[in-house]
Amino acid sequence: MSGDLAIGIDIGGTKVAGGLVAPDGTVLERTRRDTPHRSTAPHVVEDVIVDAVTELLAKAQTPPVAIGIGAAGFVSSDRATVVFAPHLSWRHEPLREALRRRIELPVFVDNDANASCWAEWRYGAVRDESHVVMVNLGTGIGGAILTDGQMQRGRFGIAGEFGHMQVVPEGHRCECGNRGCWEQYASGNALVREARSLIAANSPLAADLSAMVEGDASRLTGPMITEAARGGDPIAAELLAEIGTWLGVGLANLANAFDPGSFVIGGGVSAAGPMLLDPARAAFRRHLSGRGYRPEASIVKAQLDNEAGLIGAADLARTEVIAS
Amino acid sequence: MSGDLAIGIDIGGTKVAGGLVAPDGTVLERTRRDTPHRSTAPHVVEDVIVDAVTELLAKAQTPPVAIGIGAAGFVSSDRATVVFAPHLSWRHEPLREALRRRIELPVFVDNDANASCWAEWRYGAVRDESHVVMVNLGTGIGGAILTDGQMQRGRFGIAGEFGHMQVVPEGHRCECGNRGCWEQYASGNALVREARSLIAANSPLAADLSAMVEGDASRLTGPMITEAARGGDPIAAELLAEIGTWLGVGLANLANAFDPGSFVIGGGVSAAGPMLLDPARAAFRRHLSGRGYRPEASIVKAQLDNEAGLIGAADLARTEVIAS
Repeated sequence: MSGDLAIGIDIGGTKVAGGLVAPDGTVLERTRRDTPHRSTAPHVVEDVIVDAVTELLAKAQTPPVAIGIGAAGFVSSDRATVVFAPHLSWRHEPLREALRRRIELPVFVDNDANASCWAEWRYGAVRDESHVVMVNLGTGIGGAILTDGQMQRGRFGIAGEFGHMQVVPEGHRCECGNRGCWEQYASGNALVREARSLIAANSPLAADLSAMVEGDASRLTGPMITEAARGGDPIAAELLAEIGTWLGVGLANLANAFDPGSFVIGGGVSAAGPMLLDPARAAFRRHLSGRGYRPEASIVKAQLDNEAGLIGAADLARTEVIAS
Repeated sequence: MSGDLAIGIDIGGTKVAGGLVAPDGTVLERTRRDTPHRSTAPHVVEDVIVDAVTELLAKAQTPPVAIGIGAAGFVSSDRATVVFAPHLSWRHEPLREALRRRIELPVFVDNDANASCWAEWRYGAVRDESHVVMVNLGTGIGGAILTDGQMQRGRFGIAGEFGHMQVVPEGHRCECGNRGCWEQYASGNALVREARSLIAANSPLAADLSAMVEGDASRLTGPMITEAARGGDPIAAELLAEIGTWLGVGLANLANAFDPGSFVIGGGVSAAGPMLLDPARAAFRRHLSGRGYRPEASIVKAQLDNEAGLIGAADLARTEVIAS
């Protein structure tokens, strides 16, 4: 394996994933931590990052040239500061500066969805596409826009926050402080919320799901629902189809706005595959303005799964160092 | 007046406006026609365009170098074909080819909102802005995205169709075939629909508006409502504020997606000024995700008013000819 290595760290709502990444996108070494709860101080998250980086540096055969951080939050356009992270404790957190004091390598911070979109375009599902929109369904919804090989970060670095576009007036409340955000209808959290409320209501339809958690709705997770749907549970499949339908409605909105050639769908919920994406494609076609008179974007599943974020963060940082 | 002249033709839902445009954006000659009804054949619209161009060519002191058409519809990415126009009869209309056969000058077709956005960036309200989103409130809603001096047309040429993003599930029906489109809540048509239904319901609140049209709701127009609001009619002001509020909600959605530095608001309804834009700004701030933790885009009124489309279409065509 030749060429410049880079370290990528992906900070999600529940886990911190790190990797030592080769220029061809191969992950040579891996490490993983839990994300500290959002009630903890910002420096606790920094400690976790530094710890993961130190471990990967020790394992590297040649010294990496850069460290890329993908964070689930709004990152400033200079790629130094996390200005707001709904699922973390960061508010105007000068992450790059804080890490630079502790790590002797160039550090670049990016939104985690930007990082995974970059990875899917460089190495994954949308390699030949000039106009990509990525939508990651995890705890919430992350998003990114890539046009002609350039990440579109917006004027202040915050483009791609599709999850907080309002799709239902006066709808479900969201961590961001608003109501009716898309991620309240088409994310892992939305899937789990709906399933839990079925269990809590003692619906006979939810008997199988309820049995999986011995009646304790709070123990239910998204992967369990996907597993139940794969096993033939009709209500689990229906819940996934509902999420998929809202996904398709939102993608039609984004097609009207951006007109991409491909949507790439990542994040934990995308593991449900066709059970999610077929309803999404159907809703997309039904809601697309001018349908039948225009070319339609494809909707494809991400290929790099839960490593896209760290691979992309590493490659974005490497690209930045090589260009400078 | 020196330099290359260009002709711009703006085809809207109700009027065709043409102009002979100097490189500094000055309109030297003007002409105007009614837009043929959407039930007429496509060639009738072509006749109107050719007629307007012929008139302007006759008035030009030096021969123009290009003709730019701004059309209220989806224009293909090669800027030759109008693929779909909700308010016109065009479906896959090869407009550039049809006009080339009749006019001996380079012709470029663009979406009308792209044209007016370009004009506002070159000569108008957002001259210093790197990331612009334009929203035109006319019969419907037109939109455009301009980043670092480049129109963002999308993979198939159809980016910026914000008016057909769904904001209300199962909401009002739209010409595009869908329901709940943004332009059903924040356009001139929406304003007039709401006012007419108040008059038709014989609401005492609508007495002043009703008197303006002698009780015939079908005669009411958008400019009449703005005039009534300016004259102090509280219900007219309330109707404009409702449109403004929906405008602000949609702009917050677009800020989450694109993160522009400025929104520029044009189209006929924007003539209402602060009566529209103040409620829009209030709703925008209330609905922006992460508000208080991020820089906020400004919301400014377009400056070139109803000439932005023809000025921008002319300059886009001139830019294209000069670059080639």
